[in-house]
This record gives sequence, structure tokens and C-alpha cells, in this order.
Amino acid sequence: MNKKTLTDCCKRIAPYIHRTAVLSSQQLNAIVDAEVFFKCENFQKMGAFKMRGATNAIMQLSEAQRERGVVTHSSGNFAQAVSLAAKSLDIKAYIVMPSSAPQVKIEAVRGYDGIISICEPTIEAREAAADKICKATGATFIHPSNDIDVIVGNSSACVELLEAYPDLDAVISPVGGGGLVAGTALAVEHFGTNCQVYGAEPFAVDDAYRSLESGTIESNTNTNTIADGLRTQLGDINFPIIQKGVKQIIRVEEHEIIEAMRLIYQRLKIVIEPSSAVAFAAILKRKKQFNGTKIGVILSGGNVDLKQLPF
Amino acid sequence: MNKKTLTDCCKRIAPYIHRTAVLSSQQLNAIVDAEVFFKCENFQKMGAFKMRGATNAIMQLSEAQRERGVVTHSSGNFAQAVSLAAKSLDIKAYIVMPSSAPQVKIEAVRGYDGIISICEPTIEAREAAADKICKATGATFIHPSNDIDVIVGNSSACVELLEAYPDLDAVISPVGGGGLVAGTALAVEHFGTNCQVYGAEPFAVDDAYRSLESGTIESNTNTNTIADGLRTQLGDINFPIIQKGVKQIIRVEEHEIIEAMRLIYQRLKIVIEPSSAVAFAAILKRKKQFNGTKIGVILSGGNVDLKQLPF
Repeated sequence: MNKKTLTDCCKRIAPYIHRTAVLSSQQLNAIVDAEVFFKCENFQKMGAFKMRGATNAIMQLSEAQRERGVVTHSSGNFAQAVSLAAKSLDIKAYIVMPSSAPQVKIEAVRGYDGIISICEPTIEAREAAADKICKATGATFIHPSNDIDVIVGNSSACVELLEAYPDLDAVISPVGGGGLVAGTALAVEHFGTNCQVYGAEPFAVDDAYRSLESGTIESNTNTNTIADGLRTQLGDINFPIIQKGVKQIIRVEEHEIIEAMRLIYQRLKIVIEPSSAVAFAAILKRKKQFNGTKIGVILSGGNVDLKQLPF
Repeated sequence: MNKKTLTDCCKRIAPYIHRTAVLSSQQLNAIVDAEVFFKCENFQKMGAFKMRGATNAIMQLSEAQRERGVVTHSSGNFAQAVSLAAKSLDIKAYIVMPSSAPQVKIEAVRGYDGIISICEPTIEAREAAADKICKATGATFIHPSNDIDVIVGNSSACVELLEAYPDLDAVISPVGGGGLVAGTALAVEHFGTNCQVYGAEPFAVDDAYRSLESGTIESNTNTNTIADGLRTQLGDINFPIIQKGVKQIIRVEEHEIIEAMRLIYQRLKIVIEPSSAVAFAAILKRKKQFNGTKIGVILSGGNVDLKQLPF
């Protein structure tokens, strides 16, 4: 992995994604005694950074692979990302979704012309259904977070942030499956200067924190967090990148996530999903640690059920 | 009033305001079969366009006037705008607020160092309290909407929009006290090309619609709308500007305001107050009329009680 790989990715996917805004707020800066730059992937196409990784992964396929289409299983943003990226590139997307997926997400995938298969809501059923489609159609499976082309695609958010603000002391992103924080680590490695990468994670699903402690990939025993995008666990491709490039994982409580989310709605005037608030919650919690620094925050997405806001 | 007056205002207030973003959404465009450009005054300092008019009005005062400070009465955004603009310019702001004003708004004014007087929640009590302060201190009264310097200040939002998108066919803004739509009309007169100005108003408080029909300033008989910023009525300074420059006032129902607000949260991923949604509600309601055109929408502000969202 070198700098050119990341630069080439940025150029490749540029026509299919938004170069999203970076926002800041004097009032939020005053609260944390630091300068915070929010990279707004909630403004990204289909509403989340996942559009970047999905687009890059699909564009790396051969012509023959593209003709047979792509497969993924996801109940959330990655299903929409693969559907829209595939539609933009005029290839077929087979999306396995659990029967527990919210109707609104199923309809969003359908709106992007994703070919939907509904399965039982277990990881085994999802994998089996995806595998069956791969065998029947010859389509290529794309994993939401444990795929190097997805990780490199995700890195483009932080590359753009560092192009705009090259002197950040730190960048912090939420950690779910590990694809975003791994991409962020690659971006900082090649585009940062004296810049540290942090991950932020709910205590309830602190598999990444425990994995870095133990040196082996740990699982979550429950998924009881409002940050629904972060319930997944690390994989064997992104874990070594995280081990190498992430300085620390900061864990936050549920009420801290909600307070960070409320502050971002109230002060930045933007709509984000709970998972996105976790990174700012970590800064609020560790004010002393980040005092006086310039910090980039990757706001991962804005696909939230407006009827379920926690305030 | 000439173009130079507006240009000079833009230059004068530039150091004290944000040049706010213009957002658009392919999905919202598809819904209305038009190209819509949202001028995001929800991202303005203190969260609303009112910062523009307040800043311009205060900057037009003589040195002697500045020393004695300014007065206004407002339960909402203008109170915050005058407080913050005065603080930025290092002068005193006396703010009369009704006892019915939400505690959060009183605290916001206090946060900007406004000197608060609480009065009975009637327009007579507010005017009497402001008048008393003017007499006691020699401070200058600034009206939230019926003041030519406030109107010219407000015009800068639409001037910026037209600088970015000079070929808009229409610009639409919500109508409350009339200061924003009058400023928009001045901006379009001097910076637009074949561009029409529309106002949007809730049926419940359709004084502007009726005033244009009758040719005289009409009052509202109730204030029963979710668009709390639009409950006020036109004044003798902005009404002639509106008569001359506004082609049509489009009235919308409460449920249409809420649906427009929901779409903007969901698709643009931004936080706006209900008053801001009224203009897009008018486009949704009149899709045929605006079909195929390029329309600018002034999103007036984002100061909303997150606990009171209507969805």
C-alpha cells in the first residue's frame, strides 16, 4: 500500500461521489477547547461514507466480473451504497437483507435498483444466501468493511480532509466493522504530518478496544447501543491496519453519544446518525487530552429514522 | 435604492457574518421536477438570516449612537441577532423579551451579553418597555423587519445566492414580518436576470397574501402555525417593496410545511426551523408552476427546539 494507491482511488471515484463539506463551529470549539473540523459524510451520496468504498471496490473489478454483477449482505448503509454505486456504473447488484431490516432501508435499496433477497436475520443465513447468489450468478461478493478496496475507498474521506487541513494533530472516526478507521489510518499515514489516528467506540460494543488490547479479533457479546452502524466486528484485513495505524480507541457511554449528537444537531445544524456522534463524544469525554489541538472528525453518515431521534 | 447600496452592505457586513453554503439534492430535484438551490441561513451565525439585517443596521449608526447602544423587542431570532451583532461591534444591546419567551432563547441572548428586560407578553407591553429604555438610555431602536437597513442587510443572502447562481428563474422566501422577502426582492431587482420573486406563507397567518390582494396592510386573526417565525405582520417600509417586487405569495397548509421540513431533514441532512420549510412547501405544492425551472430557496434559519420536532 503506497500513497499513489490512495491518490489513484480519489481520482477514480471522484465522478461518482461528492467531495463533502468540512464544517466547524466556534461554539463547539469553545466547549472542547480545541479546533474541530467535521468531515460531513452525512452529505455524501446515499447519505454515508460507504459510497466511497463501494464505488472503489466495484471499479476495481474486471470487465468480465462487472458483467456478472456484485453481491453483498447488509441491513444498512452498505446495501444502499453498493446498489447506488452499481447503478451509477451500470452493473447488477444483488443485495441480501435480513427480514428484520427496516422497511425504509429495503425501499431505499429498491430505489437504487438493487436486486433484493430477504433471508433470516442471522449472520449464517446472510452469508449462505450471498454465497448461493455468487454460485448461481458468478457475481463478486463485496464485504462491507473487510475488503482492501473498500478500505482504500473509505480512505478518500480523510484524504480530502487532510488536503483541506494538512496540519491536523489528530483525526478520529467511529469504529464498527473497522473499514472506516482503517481507511482513515491509511490516509493519515500517507497524507498527515505529526497526526495521530483515534477510533471511537460505544462501551456496549467495544470489540475493537478489546481486540487492540488482546492482539486478536474479539467479538461483541451484545449489540445494545444506539449507534446501530457500529454493532459489527473487525476483520482479518482491516485489523492489522488498525493495529499499525490507530493510536488509541476511546470508549463512550450511550448518554455521551446522545449528548454529542444533540450538540451537533443544535450547533452545526446538521442531521447525523448516532454512529457519527460517537467520535465527537470521545472528544467531549477527553477534553484534557485534546486541549488546544486541531482535530478532524469523520461524521460517517446521516441516515437516521427521524421518528426515533433520542431527544 | 440602487445596486451600490446592496453591494456596499455585502462588503460592510462580510467580516461579521458567514457566507453560507448553497445545497442541492438530486432526489429533491426529482420530486419537484426542477432544480432547487437552498441558501442555508440555518448555518448563519446565531442560526438565522437575521444576523445580516441586525449587523447592517447597527453598522449604519453614528459613533454617538453606537455609544448609547441599541434596543429591540423580540422573543426569537432577532433578539439573538441584535445581541450577537452588538457584541461583535462592542456596543450595548438592550433586549425586551416577553415573559412567554422560551428559557432557551432568553439564555441564548444572555450568552451574547444582551441586557434583558422581561415584560408582559403583549405587543403593547413590548413597545412600551422598548420605548422606556430608548428614553432612559438614548439607545436606538431597531425593528426586526420594518427597517430599511435591516431589509438591505437581509438582501445580502439572496445577493450571495445570485452571485453563485446568476441564472435562477425564481427565488422564494418565507414571509413573516416581511423583512426577508423585501430584501430578497431588492436583491433580485438588482442582481437577477429574468428572475421572479415569490413569498411563501402559512394559510394560518396569510396577512401578506391578503395585504397584496387588498393593497393595504392586513393583520392576522390568529397565530396558530408551526412556523413560529412567521406570526408577525408586514410594515409600512417593507410593504411597498413587496408590492413592487414580489410576483406572488403562495400559501401552504400546516401538514405541507411539516412534510417539506421532513424532506429537507431526510434528503439535505440539515436542521432547519419550521418557518424555513414553508418556501419549499410552496414549491412542492406548485410543482406544475415551477416545472423545469431553476429556483433559489432562502432557508431562513435553524433555531428549533429539537424536543419539539413534528415527526
